[in-house]
Amino acid sequence: MAGSTYGNRFKIMTWGESHGEALGVVVDGCPAGLELCEEDIQKLLDRRKPGQSKFTTPRKEADKVKILSGVFEGKTTGTPISMVVFNTNQRSGDYSEIAGYYRPGHADYTFDAKYGFRDYRGGGRSSARETIGRVAAGAIALKILESLGITLHAYAKEIGGIAIDYEKFDLQAARENAFTMPDKEAAAKVEAYATQKIQEGDSIGGIIECVVEGMMPGIGEPVFDKLDASLGKAMLSIGAVKGFEIGSGFEAAKMTGSENNDSFVMKDGKLTKKTNHAGGVLGGMSDGSNIVFRAAVKPTPSISAVQDTVNKDGENIEISIKGRHDPMIVPRAVVVVEAMTALTLVDLIFENMTARLDGICAFYNRSK
Amino acid sequence: MAGSTYGNRFKIMTWGESHGEALGVVVDGCPAGLELCEEDIQKLLDRRKPGQSKFTTPRKEADKVKILSGVFEGKTTGTPISMVVFNTNQRSGDYSEIAGYYRPGHADYTFDAKYGFRDYRGGGRSSARETIGRVAAGAIALKILESLGITLHAYAKEIGGIAIDYEKFDLQAARENAFTMPDKEAAAKVEAYATQKIQEGDSIGGIIECVVEGMMPGIGEPVFDKLDASLGKAMLSIGAVKGFEIGSGFEAAKMTGSENNDSFVMKDGKLTKKTNHAGGVLGGMSDGSNIVFRAAVKPTPSISAVQDTVNKDGENIEISIKGRHDPMIVPRAVVVVEAMTALTLVDLIFENMTARLDGICAFYNRSK
Amino acid sequence: MAGSTYGNRFKIMTWGESHGEALGVVVDGCPAGLELCEEDIQKLLDRRKPGQSKFTTPRKEADKVKILSGVFEGKTTGTPISMVVFNTNQRSGDYSEIAGYYRPGHADYTFDAKYGFRDYRGGGRSSARETIGRVAAGAIALKILESLGITLHAYAKEIGGIAIDYEKFDLQAARENAFTMPDKEAAAKVEAYATQKIQEGDSIGGIIECVVEGMMPGIGEPVFDKLDASLGKAMLSIGAVKGFEIGSGFEAAKMTGSENNDSFVMKDGKLTKKTNHAGGVLGGMSDGSNIVFRAAVKPTPSISAVQDTVNKDGENIEISIKGRHDPMIVPRAVVVVEAMTALTLVDLIFENMTARLDGICAFYNRSK
Amino acid sequence: MAGSTYGNRFKIMTWGESHGEALGVVVDGCPAGLELCEEDIQKLLDRRKPGQSKFTTPRKEADKVKILSGVFEGKTTGTPISMVVFNTNQRSGDYSEIAGYYRPGHADYTFDAKYGFRDYRGGGRSSARETIGRVAAGAIALKILESLGITLHAYAKEIGGIAIDYEKFDLQAARENAFTMPDKEAAAKVEAYATQKIQEGDSIGGIIECVVEGMMPGIGEPVFDKLDASLGKAMLSIGAVKGFEIGSGFEAAKMTGSENNDSFVMKDGKLTKKTNHAGGVLGGMSDGSNIVFRAAVKPTPSISAVQDTVNKDGENIEISIKGRHDPMIVPRAVVVVEAMTALTLVDLIFENMTARLDGICAFYNRSK
Repeated sequence: MAGSTYGNRFKIMTWGESHGEALGVVVDGCPAGLELCEEDIQKLLDRRKPGQSKFTTPRKEADKVKILSGVFEGKTTGTPISMVVFNTNQRSGDYSEIAGYYRPGHADYTFDAKYGFRDYRGGGRSSARETIGRVAAGAIALKILESLGITLHAYAKEIGGIAIDYEKFDLQAARENAFTMPDKEAAAKVEAYATQKIQEGDSIGGIIECVVEGMMPGIGEPVFDKLDASLGKAMLSIGAVKGFEIGSGFEAAKMTGSENNDSFVMKDGKLTKKTNHAGGVLGGMSDGSNIVFRAAVKPTPSISAVQDTVNKDGENIEISIKGRHDPMIVPRAVVVVEAMTALTLVDLIFENMTARLDGICAFYNRSK
Repeated sequence: MAGSTYGNRFKIMTWGESHGEALGVVVDGCPAGLELCEEDIQKLLDRRKPGQSKFTTPRKEADKVKILSGVFEGKTTGTPISMVVFNTNQRSGDYSEIAGYYRPGHADYTFDAKYGFRDYRGGGRSSARETIGRVAAGAIALKILESLGITLHAYAKEIGGIAIDYEKFDLQAARENAFTMPDKEAAAKVEAYATQKIQEGDSIGGIIECVVEGMMPGIGEPVFDKLDASLGKAMLSIGAVKGFEIGSGFEAAKMTGSENNDSFVMKDGKLTKKTNHAGGVLGGMSDGSNIVFRAAVKPTPSISAVQDTVNKDGENIEISIKGRHDPMIVPRAVVVVEAMTALTLVDLIFENMTARLDGICAFYNRSK
Repeated sequence: MAGSTYGNRFKIMTWGESHGEALGVVVDGCPAGLELCEEDIQKLLDRRKPGQSKFTTPRKEADKVKILSGVFEGKTTGTPISMVVFNTNQRSGDYSEIAGYYRPGHADYTFDAKYGFRDYRGGGRSSARETIGRVAAGAIALKILESLGITLHAYAKEIGGIAIDYEKFDLQAARENAFTMPDKEAAAKVEAYATQKIQEGDSIGGIIECVVEGMMPGIGEPVFDKLDASLGKAMLSIGAVKGFEIGSGFEAAKMTGSENNDSFVMKDGKLTKKTNHAGGVLGGMSDGSNIVFRAAVKPTPSISAVQDTVNKDGENIEISIKGRHDPMIVPRAVVVVEAMTALTLVDLIFENMTARLDGICAFYNRSK
Repeated sequence: MAGSTYGNRFKIMTWGESHGEALGVVVDGCPAGLELCEEDIQKLLDRRKPGQSKFTTPRKEADKVKILSGVFEGKTTGTPISMVVFNTNQRSGDYSEIAGYYRPGHADYTFDAKYGFRDYRGGGRSSARETIGRVAAGAIALKILESLGITLHAYAKEIGGIAIDYEKFDLQAARENAFTMPDKEAAAKVEAYATQKIQEGDSIGGIIECVVEGMMPGIGEPVFDKLDASLGKAMLSIGAVKGFEIGSGFEAAKMTGSENNDSFVMKDGKLTKKTNHAGGVLGGMSDGSNIVFRAAVKPTPSISAVQDTVNKDGENIEISIKGRHDPMIVPRAVVVVEAMTALTLVDLIFENMTARLDGICAFYNRSK
């Protein structure tokens, strides 16, 4: 286990602290023959970069990725791909104060409880910068999905309680506004609300939705490694995510069977479903419909408003957290959701290749 | 991966189909020296048994467990524990019809898509009987937790949209009514609603809540194998679970940071939290508070009401599912939630033993 | 880890003690569509059965296997296959004496050291009966190899220092004599030597050789999961195996590069090697030649001759082990070598399916 | 699997090609609180560095390691430790010729067979430089062993057929001569023989022996993850290793039970063994004696003498390999043997912590 390794077939190990020398990831199990260059990775990393609007931390990080192994003459070789982003803008001074107390909503206390001490600079390993490795590896997974005809996109479905209106759904808008909301009007309302909360020294949460298109049926393992269970773990492994649901999710708990069941129907000679309450997964395996799921993201725990807490000497104190923080996590987490989704899907798609003996025989006969 | 294996340190492999010879589980990694007898397992299995009220399937299954290995003179030996429940009440005839079509909300189609064919008798491996192995193994995990001073209980928080009132919370009631609801009045309302839905040939869903008490802090790994992420996967791996949330969960998405953050406070010389919006987990590690989470359960997909679907020849047809089915899944899933929670906690508690060098050295010096 | 689980893609969990209720195995990850019946398993199990000549223990065990799950209408379904062999001939009385002392060459002491106590009846989990689960699972792996055109056979290369003469190599003989030696004359010499050693209350060791034919090139992972490293672990995991070598093995250590290197050469338009000092593996991957390796097997530690040892009270004592024991391990271990080889090869063959992106794309395009 | 990941509890992922940007390793699962600095790693890396005598390749590599994460204020934090060595002396021109043909005894052909093409520069991932990551991670494992009172040392037992004389065993000598031989006279003979073989453009093999002292009993899992099986895989995963044996190894195959069994005996109130034919492992678990094993290393396949082979166009050709190569692999592999041994032992020592319930309870009660 050990915690910083993800995936069984397309396996990654991420590393790095917020204010250490660098952060990165190694990918073990990427197939040979994928065209890959640093720009492929950088594109995705740039989407998680801070400092892109006043609603994200003003901290500037170049976050330039370097590929150190596993690629030769523009193609992956099948050997581990090591990627690194060197830290260039650490201001440890900003954070020295937090060494002495436990910030509410943060992992300061639990790190100390588990390990005896912690790298307190910028949250150390529990910083959002930890996701750099995930996103870099996810960029590779996304390229593999693409070569299989699978695409996916995540966006903010709701921020600060303000939800998008699906009647006005506009995916392009999600790529253009600071909140990744596919509804300009909702985004405008969020802007007003967020501006107010920033002034109050407070922060807000939201819900990210992700849709996968072009998925073949049968992906996911029927018992413990269900597709939805795996996606759930992937999402909940992202700091600040407190809930996950697929398809109708928590709404399904209030429905009757006759409402919630998706009838199968033949359409143009193809088996399909009339509705998609299931969110594209039946019995833990993809059913060929779009996969649709949501992750609930808590408000940023770092707020400048005064809070009660405890210091390392066991005294009750009051604090006000300084430094450069995102007033909301959702916009920058959207790309992490996409990365983790891609990593999970690739792993299960690879796993599925040995589900049937005829498929295995055909595979090896073909290569004869 | 392969799907029927769960856990890394306390590892289980479950097997068996609804109408096969037997179902069971092997536990690899149970420590030596735990007192264990068949009655310990049977007690938990009996709680998932069908036929205990008119709100569960009238199918009768003795479900008597047998321990075949790993226990000697009343104690576990550290070697694999194999447990088996032989099937005694299979009526394959009841199910032969479903061989030819795809039931909405079931895994019939996805099994065919993945494996080319399926054991259609009673749902085969996707039957709820698959959970027998989980519960049997979970009973052992619960005994280990108990020896560490950790207890847990799950119950129905909501069924058919009818929620419990925490003012009237009564855990004993949950063990006594057919719905596992810790609120007698809510249970009475559910009974009326469920009776009506059964008459309509329909089914209902609900929400299960689980609380873990006595957890030491620091359990869970800080990145991918977070405690909440692992619990989420555990819950979502249970058939019919469509959503998971920890602490305030989806509500947290609507809150501000100042509302959602739990202030730390010293109380009787012990660090604690004023509130528990976090649900007992910070940064993926237990914080010493109660762990509180919920799983959303969809309504039983098997309903006798008429439904549209498709048969294996690709024709649109109408069906009405016969046979013995639970009108709601929640009551019998409660014990599965407890089992999966115990399995997950034990695995992470074992994992945590190598978090600190001083702990490792003390462990080996002690045994010198 | 936990020790009784083997394989990553074709994963097995074995269980059972010599004198417990039963022994068995669960296979998680067997592809769907393999024709399988109990007779397929029984055939291989019968080859490891005791009591087949005076050179194996006279203990009689029916060792009848039962398949409890994962097969429907004569074919594997892709779900876990559970197999069990009930114990029918335990005579615990024979073994009660050994509860009190540590037999030289056995795991009695180390079991106590690790677990605090042990199931001493017949060696418990460290009995050779533990291999029943391996052989049952290996029978399935062998069927998968067969469907890919791969065959393998193991035999005694040397027993009690008496080696076969490759000039007289006769594989059929190996299936007919009590020693599995592919050389009748060597077998006759072993018979004389073994008879003498039995009379002296002593036991003898030997070397098993295994040859795999029809292997496609490229199987095995180039760094830690090399094909030869994996085979080595497989062999050394068999009780009594103390050494492993592939190709020229320890002889290679005495050779020069010009002697040991196998020249490549085109033959009938096909790349091949002039010699096979490498044993069919280059850089940890199969090279298309036969895979050839050997395992050194120590003499049976249970001997009736008097030995010094220590009892549980820490007293130096003399013992003479009674009971029914094999005077040599090699003949019955041959089928275990075949089983473990098959399990290892299938696992790596499955792993290899995601080595190249073009192969993955072709696989999924084919099934579209 | 995926091949470049090793260990389950103390897990490492190595990466890097001979002539890529860099090589390195990430360690996931190192406990917190270990004092660690770059010098700890560098010391071990320096022992595998080329160019230290005329019997290793004259290629100069600074091989300076950098720790990029997981250490804070001189101590490990429990988070992944990333280490990197940048390549500074790649001369790709030397190697361009080998792109077109398959060198005998090398992985050129098998890499092409598996992945479709290969990074041919300096052997790419199959270069001995791949072991840099192993040695860097092994240095950490060695420090953990040291804190548990366990030490280990490897040395050349035999080179070019010239074996050490145990009567003249001198461990200090092994650290001083170019051949790592603990017998000065044998080393002198090897020097003469090796000098001659270098002149002939040929290379030689040998045998490495490793001894572990101070091991607690009970380490290793009794079935598949036996201590000796795990060490065997570790050794055979090192390029050029073709055989492995523990204790008497292949000699045990020629012995009788009465010769090979090690009698237990009480000595100074402590259970010990009169002999150590077992090599310190009984039933796959350490027995408290020294662990003693050997690895057979083939001669360097890169030789300047003329060899037959095949090129990528399928033509039979003659080649003479140019470039800078070690005339023997043993001396530089000794430190890799030590590193892999340490990694394997730490993994199994960590695994063993959950073998007994009383140990687990004591561990958690202690920390209360």
